[in-house]
Amino acid sequence: MRILLFFSWFLIIEIGVASANDELPSWRRGAIKQDLTAFVRAIETPNQSLFVPVSERIAVFDNDGTLWAEQPHYVPSLFVYDRIRALSKDHPEWIHELPFKYVLESDQKKLTTLSSDEYTQLLIASQENESIDAFEQKVMDWLSSHRHPEFNQPYIELVYQPMLEVLRYLRHHGFKTYIVSGGARDFMRPWTETVYGIPPEQVIGTSLRETYEVKDGQPNIRSLSELDLMNNKQGKPVGIHAHIGRKPIIGFGNSDGDYEMLQWISSNPKPHRAYIIHHDDAEREWAYDRVSFIGQLNRALDDANRFNWHIVSMKNDWLSIFPKHLSSRAHR
Amino acid sequence: MRILLFFSWFLIIEIGVASANDELPSWRRGAIKQDLTAFVRAIETPNQSLFVPVSERIAVFDNDGTLWAEQPHYVPSLFVYDRIRALSKDHPEWIHELPFKYVLESDQKKLTTLSSDEYTQLLIASQENESIDAFEQKVMDWLSSHRHPEFNQPYIELVYQPMLEVLRYLRHHGFKTYIVSGGARDFMRPWTETVYGIPPEQVIGTSLRETYEVKDGQPNIRSLSELDLMNNKQGKPVGIHAHIGRKPIIGFGNSDGDYEMLQWISSNPKPHRAYIIHHDDAEREWAYDRVSFIGQLNRALDDANRFNWHIVSMKNDWLSIFPKHLSSRAHR
Repeated sequence: MRILLFFSWFLIIEIGVASANDELPSWRRGAIKQDLTAFVRAIETPNQSLFVPVSERIAVFDNDGTLWAEQPHYVPSLFVYDRIRALSKDHPEWIHELPFKYVLESDQKKLTTLSSDEYTQLLIASQENESIDAFEQKVMDWLSSHRHPEFNQPYIELVYQPMLEVLRYLRHHGFKTYIVSGGARDFMRPWTETVYGIPPEQVIGTSLRETYEVKDGQPNIRSLSELDLMNNKQGKPVGIHAHIGRKPIIGFGNSDGDYEMLQWISSNPKPHRAYIIHHDDAEREWAYDRVSFIGQLNRALDDANRFNWHIVSMKNDWLSIFPKHLSSRAHR
Repeated sequence: MRILLFFSWFLIIEIGVASANDELPSWRRGAIKQDLTAFVRAIETPNQSLFVPVSERIAVFDNDGTLWAEQPHYVPSLFVYDRIRALSKDHPEWIHELPFKYVLESDQKKLTTLSSDEYTQLLIASQENESIDAFEQKVMDWLSSHRHPEFNQPYIELVYQPMLEVLRYLRHHGFKTYIVSGGARDFMRPWTETVYGIPPEQVIGTSLRETYEVKDGQPNIRSLSELDLMNNKQGKPVGIHAHIGRKPIIGFGNSDGDYEMLQWISSNPKPHRAYIIHHDDAEREWAYDRVSFIGQLNRALDDANRFNWHIVSMKNDWLSIFPKHLSSRAHR
């Protein structure tokens, strides 16, 4: 009897410990979760062949489609379009000029197929001459006054719960976590620390050149009308090197825009892991990959095996998608 | 008797505690040390008006003349000149071209008065088309094979002991420490972690534009023939904003090249401190300021009072200059 009791207690304690130790509760027990946690245990075990010192534990994350939803429109683009609409009062000529005309006429078809150059033109126009403080205020005002068209929630609520857990988990194990996004750096920095625990100095994004100036004794940084870095595709490893100066050992992306970033990580002679979040859950989120205009995932899917990139199925690997209060899509 | 013994013990313990607590042992007890330590105590005391959360404890440091010696020549420039000499084999035309001619003829007078554009031209030529790994190797080879002309020591030994203590002290109190230098970022990153405890991702410096390319399946970052950022004067706050995204609360500089960086810090509404290292110790280091070609300190000295920038006298505030084994100048 005493032995039986002992075992019961032991079981209860074991279960308690197991659950308390689960730092990724929204991840289904499966190959991905098992491999990631085994990897982290291996790289943090001193004197083992896979050990990686804390200073080299760098993890990078795409934002749109990897940390938060990107359907039916990239959120940073919606902000750019709204800025263009607001600024068009002072630019009556825009109604006749491409690509501004597309925005002012809300030509969705054209807007979803903008070339990189056209998007850059809009981005520059939306931010040029802005001082950093005034622009930050515009970002925060916009985010607090706009909601996702289908979920009817503020955009910053549409973050992926399993990814919030990965961010926290990796930081808890000595990682520095970075955003490496094609979205505008200055659109993300004002809120990433609150939402993701990622401070502004760890946000790498598309940015304009800037200048320092002093007016009436007040120093200021002002955006110029020239692109500094298009932090997408080949631009991602460039941004990573410019800001971090060493190769990450973990990376998460979800589209062909992340191909070069994941390839860069895969060339790290240190132990590393690269992941692709696959949007295959039409029920709880959206299902899209090879033929989507938003977050197209084609080339990276073809080469995932070759590079040993791990495919995360949102449908099968994630027990929940959004933080609890958003468990179902509002419009369905 | 018992009371006397008690007091003796008390004294011994007190002295022991005071000395164990002194995180800046190479700084003379004086106004600067007292103010800095009082400032740090104030900003880390929760619920006090001056409290600054850990995430906003950003400290920035110029490198040449602030963390290590810059006389009789800026070390990053010496490296650039040696690269130009090595590359000149493939550029026979350089002997007729300015500013290359100055380097190849070792025209010291011209080299100490190069314009920013001329220096940029040399910097670009010294690094263009280099892959990041190969370039890092060249930096490390150069540093291990060259010595300071007067101290006859490797350059990385000529770091300032009191500043090593400040870096460690601030980190111990929750600060992130950054280098913000006019020197080339890629010349500093390979060794700053070992020497200063500052990882590559916290090194902001002058940099070239870069490109990502894959050759024979090997991804690589290669420097282009175009300046990305001249991280000096007005470039320093621009570099700080691009990399950090918020104003530092502590900064150390030593020359007019740091003016705008210190001005930027002084405009921080949060509690802050800005320091100028004044080279006034001809005996142990060098004495120079207003009329020097290297590390000229003129405008910043004029305005120090107005901005409440604290002047650190190397002669009076520092008990030692270099780490112990370098207590005297070898050539004297």
